[in-house]
Amino acid sequence: MKSLDNIIDEFAKLPGIGRKSAMRIAFHVLEMEDEELLNFITILKEAKEKIKKCEICGNLTENDICEICSDEERDSSIICIVKDSRDIIAFEKSKTYNGLYHVLGGIIDPLNGIGVDDLDIDKLTKRLTGNVKEVILALDPSLEGETTSLYLSKIIKEKEIIVSRIASGIPMGGNIEFSDIATLSRSLEGRKEI
Amino acid sequence: MKSLDNIIDEFAKLPGIGRKSAMRIAFHVLEMEDEELLNFITILKEAKEKIKKCEICGNLTENDICEICSDEERDSSIICIVKDSRDIIAFEKSKTYNGLYHVLGGIIDPLNGIGVDDLDIDKLTKRLTGNVKEVILALDPSLEGETTSLYLSKIIKEKEIIVSRIASGIPMGGNIEFSDIATLSRSLEGRKEI
Repeated sequence: MKSLDNIIDEFAKLPGIGRKSAMRIAFHVLEMEDEELLNFITILKEAKEKIKKCEICGNLTENDICEICSDEERDSSIICIVKDSRDIIAFEKSKTYNGLYHVLGGIIDPLNGIGVDDLDIDKLTKRLTGNVKEVILALDPSLEGETTSLYLSKIIKEKEIIVSRIASGIPMGGNIEFSDIATLSRSLEGRKEI
Repeated sequence: MKSLDNIIDEFAKLPGIGRKSAMRIAFHVLEMEDEELLNFITILKEAKEKIKKCEICGNLTENDICEICSDEERDSSIICIVKDSRDIIAFEKSKTYNGLYHVLGGIIDPLNGIGVDDLDIDKLTKRLTGNVKEVILALDPSLEGETTSLYLSKIIKEKEIIVSRIASGIPMGGNIEFSDIATLSRSLEGRKEI
């Protein structure tokens, strides 16, 4: 059935959904009440229409400026650079950071043809004015993340702003025994006197 | 953000999608091109409109009668009863069955308030005419599946039709060591001389 295959294909395109899950979801959707499906579609459309990127930091927002950038309680002297808005949600949940963010929207990834020019560096450098004292690089500790961090740190240091990088090491609850070499080596490098 | 929460909630309602996956999918959808999202929505609507249940067996189809029921090459003297259309797809992939199917659409599940009256037994009994020689019960080997099988077998036997049940036991590639007691006991019960 063409229309069944189509709907399965569409769900299989979503991130983290394999063929079997896509089929399960497709059957679920086919069994929905018409009204329920219309509601689902309306919510998709509405979210897509209302949500845009913050003009300052690139975070998702329903306004021109996001909640974090417009919050005067937050420390605007410190900016944490993340790959995308999901990372902001993760940090916000931890409730340990009160500065601002900057969403890079991507990282340098030569294998997938993403170079320096594909990152919106201008938007970032415009923010690196007198008020900013520290920039925290919070990109994934992968080869691409490291490359991007190195590149950005050079640009930021030129502005005489402190650059830091979030610690990487063995996650809480993790095992030394099952940690990979790179993580162990990072955990040693980043050791702290107690 | 209300509209972001809404879209995450919607995806989290789909089967097999947890909160984290729902968030990942929501962000993916927000990053889609407008055209891409419209296409996605069109495919959902189209599938929902076109796909209905076969008038004979209850399988999903774009026509009044499904491909299997209308295939004259298939053996109409044998009917395999399954819970839903997905099970038909699984059996058809195995290419080992050439009879017809009957989709029950549910199984007896008193804990969830599904009783005998909620199953469309009439549709099934109407098919149990002179031509049918055997009915295979292919419901999941769970308490609910077993109860339903027992109930159906009584009705079918009254019509003097052979009733069989698919074998349950240790799956191909499975381990005896890690099999649960019920499976092991089933595998012994169902042993065959070789």
